[in-house]
Amino acid sequence: MGFWKSLFSGTDAPAASKAAPMDRYVGDETDDRTTNRIFFSTERDLDLYELEELCDAVGWSRRPLRKVKKAIQHSFLVVTMWEQRGAQRRLIGFSRATSDHAFNATIWDVVIHPDFQGKGMGKALMKYMIKKLRGEDISNITLFADPQVVNFYRNLGFMSDPEGIKGMFWYPD
Amino acid sequence: MGFWKSLFSGTDAPAASKAAPMDRYVGDETDDRTTNRIFFSTERDLDLYELEELCDAVGWSRRPLRKVKKAIQHSFLVVTMWEQRGAQRRLIGFSRATSDHAFNATIWDVVIHPDFQGKGMGKALMKYMIKKLRGEDISNITLFADPQVVNFYRNLGFMSDPEGIKGMFWYPD
Repeated sequence: MGFWKSLFSGTDAPAASKAAPMDRYVGDETDDRTTNRIFFSTERDLDLYELEELCDAVGWSRRPLRKVKKAIQHSFLVVTMWEQRGAQRRLIGFSRATSDHAFNATIWDVVIHPDFQGKGMGKALMKYMIKKLRGEDISNITLFADPQVVNFYRNLGFMSDPEGIKGMFWYPD
Repeated sequence: MGFWKSLFSGTDAPAASKAAPMDRYVGDETDDRTTNRIFFSTERDLDLYELEELCDAVGWSRRPLRKVKKAIQHSFLVVTMWEQRGAQRRLIGFSRATSDHAFNATIWDVVIHPDFQGKGMGKALMKYMIKKLRGEDISNITLFADPQVVNFYRNLGFMSDPEGIKGMFWYPD
């Protein structure tokens, strides 16, 4: 079965991990020594330096942590993805969405650590985001995709410019 | 000077209207009988039936008022536009934005009553939205524009697909 033992199996986190109630077990990865678990979490109490390290790893420009903290606080949904080796957790993915809590959500800052790219992690993260947003009765999920990831989102069911609707941006001069 | 006496004059609302502290005087329109004032407000305590009437007037599909109420509550910014004749106010425009309160805002549901279209009202409303969002230190203002209004937003400084970034939508099956 390759990398994943039970991706999207719907299995809950094993008892040992239930301390963090929002956590959700995704699957296992194995290396030479041990089996490592992959989890999602919607817990926002995040080490911002660890998040910055993740964003550094994919080459994003640094942003003031004060603003990152505020953005996380005021996002409708924040999903983190973790690799657990024994008692140690490592942040390997992140995404968040703004929303009006009723009709629309917009997904921002989707990132997977390069060590974990090409293994279906981004797809798993996005499916989890969609599932959570749908669970909150949000029917219009939107995002702004860089050209190199348009096909990635298309494969997840996102449509670009449906009925000619254009994503538009305004920046200060 | 046509329709507006003092659009964007920066004048505050006259004393009589200061009861609603978020109101902002936009300008005057005149008809045969009297001078009517146009105001913006960021007050959210809105008659939802009046808003529904406005949206009906431009042919939008009706939405459950319970969800509209929730969306207004959870929007970062809600701007309404009013015509005041004597003691009577009429809702003539509406717009709102979701945001993470830090980096991004997305503008939704921009509407001007057909009786007031073609008079610079939409432009005034959007400029006010941008000014308020900029005042909150939001630098990335986004929206999804129907094809027939792409040029309207372009004239306000919005860019479509900058650097190939595509607006994408996911809808439930």
